[in-house]
Amino acid sequence: MMLVIYNLLLMPHIWHSWQTSTHIMKRLSAQDYVNGILESNRFVLSRAITLVESNRDSDSELAQTVLETLAQKKVKNSIRIGITGSPGVGKSTFIETFGLHLVGLGKKVAVLAIDPSSQRTGGSIMGDKTRMEQLVKQPNAYVRPSASGNTLGGVAKKTREAILLCEYANYDVIIVETVGVGQSEVAVKEMTDFFLLLMLAGAGDELQGIKKGIMEMTDAIAITKADGENIRKAKKAGGEYTGALHLFPSNKSGWYPKVLTCSAIEQTGIAEIWELIESFKIKMTENHFFSQNRSNQNLHWLHETIRQKLLHNFYSDQIVKKALKANETAVKSGEKSAYKVALELLKLAK
Amino acid sequence: MMLVIYNLLLMPHIWHSWQTSTHIMKRLSAQDYVNGILESNRFVLSRAITLVESNRDSDSELAQTVLETLAQKKVKNSIRIGITGSPGVGKSTFIETFGLHLVGLGKKVAVLAIDPSSQRTGGSIMGDKTRMEQLVKQPNAYVRPSASGNTLGGVAKKTREAILLCEYANYDVIIVETVGVGQSEVAVKEMTDFFLLLMLAGAGDELQGIKKGIMEMTDAIAITKADGENIRKAKKAGGEYTGALHLFPSNKSGWYPKVLTCSAIEQTGIAEIWELIESFKIKMTENHFFSQNRSNQNLHWLHETIRQKLLHNFYSDQIVKKALKANETAVKSGEKSAYKVALELLKLAK
Repeated sequence: MMLVIYNLLLMPHIWHSWQTSTHIMKRLSAQDYVNGILESNRFVLSRAITLVESNRDSDSELAQTVLETLAQKKVKNSIRIGITGSPGVGKSTFIETFGLHLVGLGKKVAVLAIDPSSQRTGGSIMGDKTRMEQLVKQPNAYVRPSASGNTLGGVAKKTREAILLCEYANYDVIIVETVGVGQSEVAVKEMTDFFLLLMLAGAGDELQGIKKGIMEMTDAIAITKADGENIRKAKKAGGEYTGALHLFPSNKSGWYPKVLTCSAIEQTGIAEIWELIESFKIKMTENHFFSQNRSNQNLHWLHETIRQKLLHNFYSDQIVKKALKANETAVKSGEKSAYKVALELLKLAK
Repeated sequence: MMLVIYNLLLMPHIWHSWQTSTHIMKRLSAQDYVNGILESNRFVLSRAITLVESNRDSDSELAQTVLETLAQKKVKNSIRIGITGSPGVGKSTFIETFGLHLVGLGKKVAVLAIDPSSQRTGGSIMGDKTRMEQLVKQPNAYVRPSASGNTLGGVAKKTREAILLCEYANYDVIIVETVGVGQSEVAVKEMTDFFLLLMLAGAGDELQGIKKGIMEMTDAIAITKADGENIRKAKKAGGEYTGALHLFPSNKSGWYPKVLTCSAIEQTGIAEIWELIESFKIKMTENHFFSQNRSNQNLHWLHETIRQKLLHNFYSDQIVKKALKANETAVKSGEKSAYKVALELLKLAK
């Protein structure tokens, strides 16, 4: 019987159904969380991330205590990789293959997905289909499905703290996945060390979904599905992107973005992407950009949190909401000055 | 004697020295401003822009009255062009030649420059040297030198209102110039209809100064100094940029950015740039993007002004300043959570 439960605990899709019913489970103490995480217990890690994601005040306080206690410990020397790409580019398949490759190298790999719930349908863009089935079964992998949530700054805060929890749980590689069509890519860029954009060959058309500015943020572009008849097209696209990236402003880090091709099905190019990321980390450590960037990111999130909370408080004000609605048309048409209406609204909020 | 004064009034560099001594000049009434602007009187226009730029409350109120009165009038059907490029790309020379070309076509042209004062030296990046000497002498041109100012949102607000004033003063083409290395390009993109990036041939190196993301915002790139021995290099660079832009995500407007070459000295390619902008306006008017974009920009500035004022109020708080300074190092090192410190600071400000 105990063995059955133990086996269940090793199967993440089971934890997730457990998680949804945490209210009927024994509440863990801060020390329980800390111990479990330091022991790299995925069940506790999952519950800790759920705690971080919770909007309840009592959960939030407990989460902060856990994070503060962990902050005393030495944290894993990890690499945080942001991965983005339009739907259809094969993100899940790529991440699964890439993750299995890393596990094969003896790495512990955590995958966190940011899935902005579709505002139109209320549904999830990534879907509820079981994802990364092979990776999920690896004892050295942890896959956390979408942290949905439309609350201002919610996703970013939760994902940042989930990254930290994974690092204290001894994960070497933290992959943060986004869909590449929303607002979250800049946020992910600001919480990761390396930003990878997945693209399909057949330049141009499939970019429709990608937001402007993302291409210039990348540290590398990987052309996916470079297999079978696609190889030639992928190599050609690779050359074109290499040319395009060469025209971009250079990075502050001194890193020149690279373009690679890969195939998850034929397992080609996957090792090369990891080698590239490793060489990136070595170079960025040598020139001190790696740690400086993380410091700056921490400071960025301080100011970003302040910005989001100030805006959230302002726009939640019922009087402001009403006045905004009443003036919006006149501002759009230019009948009323945007500046003047802004000042009026700010006065109302006081 | 009257003729001498009249001639002086036609020379903008004289007005500017007059402007600096507006305090000894007769204060104009709101109606004086409105009448002068509607009569396209450049002297009054200059003083109105100075009024808009002033940080004094009484000036600010008068400026709002002027703008509100003007808002009742039908405004010129203008085109607003943002022009940016690194120092050395030949911006002033290009704008002067381009402006003279437009004046030759019977257009009234206003040039507004956003010059973020160098924070390090306190000096002006654009320098105090006399600029656009030929253009300045044209009765149908108005050149407004740098609106400097480090106040949060100041530059943007002032420039937006200066654009409106020029339009009420019957200018057809409003050019907003930025240096391309600061924070102001996104602001300029959000207040213009067409965004033009000037580049030098010799791809790559000269991009050092251009901020990331600017390339993806452009409606067109003009390779400058395509003359003499440079022509071949410029054409080659043009081809490369065309290829690169082709790989970018498409614009919401359905407009595909173009790359052209030009020479201010040899007067080549200048007419083509204006023709491109005209065809842009026709297409964007046909698909209604032009007016939709201006409406959205108005709304954008409402929210942007609110954002800037909220942040400014928050960070001006002496208690916040002190607490921020005390916690910054701990946040950067990760010793303290950015999220937690943000909440603490927000509590202090209340």
